[in-house]
Amino acid sequence: MKRISILGSTGSIGTQTLDIVRLNDDVSVEALSAHKNIDLLEKQIREFRPKVATIWEEVDAKLLSDRIKDTDTKVCFGMEGLTEAATVEGADIVVTAVVGMIGIEPAIAAIKAKKDIALANKETLVCAGHIIMPLAKKMNINIYPVDSEHSAIFQCLDKNNPIKKILLTASGGPFRGYTKEQLQKVTLEDALKHPNWSMGKKITVDSATMVNKGLEIIEASHLFGVDIDNIEVVIQKESIIHSMVEFKDNGIIAQLGTPDMRLPISYALFYPERRYIADERVDFSKLNSLNFSKPDLDVFEGLRLAITAGKEGGSAPTVLNAANEWAVAKFLKKKIRFIDIPYLIGKALDAHKFTKNPSISDILLLKKWTEEYLERIKI
Amino acid sequence: MKRISILGSTGSIGTQTLDIVRLNDDVSVEALSAHKNIDLLEKQIREFRPKVATIWEEVDAKLLSDRIKDTDTKVCFGMEGLTEAATVEGADIVVTAVVGMIGIEPAIAAIKAKKDIALANKETLVCAGHIIMPLAKKMNINIYPVDSEHSAIFQCLDKNNPIKKILLTASGGPFRGYTKEQLQKVTLEDALKHPNWSMGKKITVDSATMVNKGLEIIEASHLFGVDIDNIEVVIQKESIIHSMVEFKDNGIIAQLGTPDMRLPISYALFYPERRYIADERVDFSKLNSLNFSKPDLDVFEGLRLAITAGKEGGSAPTVLNAANEWAVAKFLKKKIRFIDIPYLIGKALDAHKFTKNPSISDILLLKKWTEEYLERIKI
Repeated sequence: MKRISILGSTGSIGTQTLDIVRLNDDVSVEALSAHKNIDLLEKQIREFRPKVATIWEEVDAKLLSDRIKDTDTKVCFGMEGLTEAATVEGADIVVTAVVGMIGIEPAIAAIKAKKDIALANKETLVCAGHIIMPLAKKMNINIYPVDSEHSAIFQCLDKNNPIKKILLTASGGPFRGYTKEQLQKVTLEDALKHPNWSMGKKITVDSATMVNKGLEIIEASHLFGVDIDNIEVVIQKESIIHSMVEFKDNGIIAQLGTPDMRLPISYALFYPERRYIADERVDFSKLNSLNFSKPDLDVFEGLRLAITAGKEGGSAPTVLNAANEWAVAKFLKKKIRFIDIPYLIGKALDAHKFTKNPSISDILLLKKWTEEYLERIKI
Repeated sequence: MKRISILGSTGSIGTQTLDIVRLNDDVSVEALSAHKNIDLLEKQIREFRPKVATIWEEVDAKLLSDRIKDTDTKVCFGMEGLTEAATVEGADIVVTAVVGMIGIEPAIAAIKAKKDIALANKETLVCAGHIIMPLAKKMNINIYPVDSEHSAIFQCLDKNNPIKKILLTASGGPFRGYTKEQLQKVTLEDALKHPNWSMGKKITVDSATMVNKGLEIIEASHLFGVDIDNIEVVIQKESIIHSMVEFKDNGIIAQLGTPDMRLPISYALFYPERRYIADERVDFSKLNSLNFSKPDLDVFEGLRLAITAGKEGGSAPTVLNAANEWAVAKFLKKKIRFIDIPYLIGKALDAHKFTKNPSISDILLLKKWTEEYLERIKI
């Protein structure tokens, strides 16, 4: 029996995780958490009967409590609720699929409670990799990547040979091949049209700016212990090669598949067993070709900034990420333009006071500082 | 210290194996064998000082003996000599790189002497896989593939998950995309121009007819315990993907690299360690694209015949292979046309008396029968 807790169960990764749960008889759901989708959370509670369910706002928690009083599920809220879901008794593995830096603290709580992590929250390692990775090692727990690229790298590892280079593939997003001038004019609607993957809005915009790929580089660096300099982005527009590992002998192992997030989710939950069967096989004769190119770091400034921030380490990735979160939220509300996103990230990175080894509370303060700083910037 | 014996040391795989030996301080060469290149064999003996050296003809052995009487190397000849080289005392692993069915008996002798095998001789498994694989299991020895495709598959295995399908890649050879009519006119010179790999003449012609890919299917079926029906040929003209394994979840693991046989040779010798460093990395931005198609079994009849023979099993692969050896030898001497190769293979397969479970002596008799039968065919 696999007992899981899902943080962010009403989002894209969360609902697909529950699809996987439905396909397997030997999984129980011990905790669920949502940001504000109370209707879906109620449905999930009725279907999966977790011990704990948590929602962000206290007022929603009261409402939910009322609605599900016929069940045995305990309702919580806020960071305390997330922590309770992350550490719920009996869970073996916690799927951290909340969006944003809010995922860091529950991940730490879960690790300290000796739960394995199925990691779908990028910020956990981007901002706090220097704290999380040694903690995971100390607590002797496993961090299984859920992201398709990191899952691919994980599937390509060779226990007898260290990684020489990670070839992190990228679709290039909807604006692949654009010039700087073309990027000036793109709209929110353009940015939300990802060519290959169906994902949440925040990550879809991050794919369009390629900041997402930059965050993945930083995440991969922590997860696999590889220098940023040895992580190369390869644009592979069909999203069939999910990433590759190059070894000392220049031999490369790659993982390929149709774009289906349920495969890496299932692999993270049941490792080393491959269980979930993707709906479609790769049909190479229909595929015809796979096309490769290099990302243009002059056009995709967000990617360039992320690589630089990753190399600097310390406080830089947190400021990058906080600035990106803030800017994408504004862009989603049509308050700023697409190209303002990297502009604002760059401003915040330049202005912040660099620290080498930020603690979790430093990281949260850095986020606050970044938001307050960006509020004052005129565009 | 790794102690090796090389059967076929003056051929393409043999000389590249010795390149690998030169790059490593902890390898000794215990035996060398050549077909008739006495000059190169003498040089190799002087450089590597094996205990045993063997050459096919007795007269060459006498000549060689004379030339190297200042060394401690014992000179042998014929099948007895090959067997002595295959079972030489102290060797851990035997590289079987002789061309043709002559490689079967020494491989069996080596396995019985509890040597691991670095297998470069296709015929060993194509003709006698039903004998070799159970014997290797019984003797508890390992068969490491040297062929780039089989090495790739070997590198893609996942000990926790069985293979669902093997996606065996093929360059398609120099006549990829040709029609039946175009194939009628091709010459020996055309057939010897392989687009990506530099190999011996026999295997280069086999690549052009795609019989080679058919033999590889049969070999892979034995080596990895996969039904012929679950082995799919994928044309990938750039020869960068060396083969792929598809698992139950429809996820695919692939091995990629520049075409350099020394990589799989080194991997077979030093498994699980990756030691040899290929001269060139794959540069995806220069590569631009990888192109895929299906083989046309109506045009490449040799491949179709090999797949059918593989499915039939028993005596069929031996007759296919013997007929191919005979026909390619004639083609190399310009006695027959390119398209006569599959024609003759088909004739021999149709005419032979099928047996389910041929012994080694049956296999050798089948080869003789096939040659005698083909001598009588008028073209």
